[in-house]
Amino acid sequence: MKKNYKLLVSYDGSRYFGWEHQPGNDMTIQGKLETVLQQMVGEDHPPITVIGAGRTDAGVHARAMTANVLLDTELSEDGIQAYMNRYLPDDISVNEVKIAADRFHSRFKAVGKTYRYTLWYGKSKPVFDRKYVYMLKEQPDLERMREAAQYLTGMHDYKSFCGNSHMKKSTIRVVDTISIETSGSYIRIYVHGNGFLQNMVRILVGTLLEVGYGRMEPEDMGAILEAKDRKKAGPTAPAQGLCLMKVDYD
Amino acid sequence: MKKNYKLLVSYDGSRYFGWEHQPGNDMTIQGKLETVLQQMVGEDHPPITVIGAGRTDAGVHARAMTANVLLDTELSEDGIQAYMNRYLPDDISVNEVKIAADRFHSRFKAVGKTYRYTLWYGKSKPVFDRKYVYMLKEQPDLERMREAAQYLTGMHDYKSFCGNSHMKKSTIRVVDTISIETSGSYIRIYVHGNGFLQNMVRILVGTLLEVGYGRMEPEDMGAILEAKDRKKAGPTAPAQGLCLMKVDYD
Repeated sequence: MKKNYKLLVSYDGSRYFGWEHQPGNDMTIQGKLETVLQQMVGEDHPPITVIGAGRTDAGVHARAMTANVLLDTELSEDGIQAYMNRYLPDDISVNEVKIAADRFHSRFKAVGKTYRYTLWYGKSKPVFDRKYVYMLKEQPDLERMREAAQYLTGMHDYKSFCGNSHMKKSTIRVVDTISIETSGSYIRIYVHGNGFLQNMVRILVGTLLEVGYGRMEPEDMGAILEAKDRKKAGPTAPAQGLCLMKVDYD
Repeated sequence: MKKNYKLLVSYDGSRYFGWEHQPGNDMTIQGKLETVLQQMVGEDHPPITVIGAGRTDAGVHARAMTANVLLDTELSEDGIQAYMNRYLPDDISVNEVKIAADRFHSRFKAVGKTYRYTLWYGKSKPVFDRKYVYMLKEQPDLERMREAAQYLTGMHDYKSFCGNSHMKKSTIRVVDTISIETSGSYIRIYVHGNGFLQNMVRILVGTLLEVGYGRMEPEDMGAILEAKDRKKAGPTAPAQGLCLMKVDYD
């Protein structure tokens, strides 16, 4: 009998074309998970579909992506986890497997997400996590960035911060917090909201950096939101600095 | 006029054949540093020799290798650091450049070193630092390992823990501390001593793991030291778990 399993997955996205399965491309996170699970349950089992809470872009990382999958298996939760971790590549780890309610859907039931974007500015280099940070050449003004962040939180139409120009559905989202913390040469931007558009966090960060470098003013943020025009916002910050930290459910 | 500069260097050793310069092999840490410095001072400057506090093996990492080099340059300490970090690969960083006393010699003046060896045992996998840990398949008994570590500290002839069978010089060393700490699925072994033989920390760790898995007894450590025979100790733990943390000077 099929049961619905909830998975917590972390991955180093460097080598992958993002979360979402793409026909003919075996370098996606969803694809790797589905292949290993199909191998686990055998070819007689109906095709495996792993549903993720969100679709991270190529090169984006995750500490705790939540996913769910219907499986008909005799294996225990621990047995599934052990099997997956044994056969998945070293840069994808399953950190938890739990039987969930039948109606649990990792995407539709998600009520919030936390992303972290990591910047580095310093005289030395972050050799041990160089693949997980975006190295800056100049020091940005964090107070200006924090001021701009105030304008970008709340309930807004984030169309100017959407990387998909053909987006037909609502682009209204609630962003509760954009907090900017420093530790040594690291600058970490935590963004929490109820949902995110394509590239949204990376465009928010790219725009905040424009403010940090004096090329935009904090007070410009209102007009950028109002314009509902991707061209008014800043550039899309590189994927490698972004990491999905947590998905919230009620 | 030549001045003696002290450098603090960190590196991810994964891609390298170790610290020491090898003729005809440009993938050594010393070689990379010398090439960049020679380029900085120009070809008219006498050949650059970077002296390191120790020679880490192929695949071993460092957070703070201390080195020194004689340079005749107009550049400031910050200028040297900026130049080096700009031209060195992303997996080597110069964290400090300081003018030192003429008689400062990073190897001869070193009075102690701290190494850290990182093990991992858990149901999940360390995706973000998978290149800096040694993943264990079974859980070792840390109390047995801590007991064995007691026998391995002090002043001893560590010939049984020396990877170089042709070693002619003294193999007597003082190891002050071997401490074993855990944090989540990480098991970190810190080793501090006045000096280390080739592969010594890795053989110490490999031997402690034999005890942790019940294949050796803590009380066997005395006889292994006394034997002065590499074959009596355990295997050499993999390079990737090892990191030079700090070099001490008076």
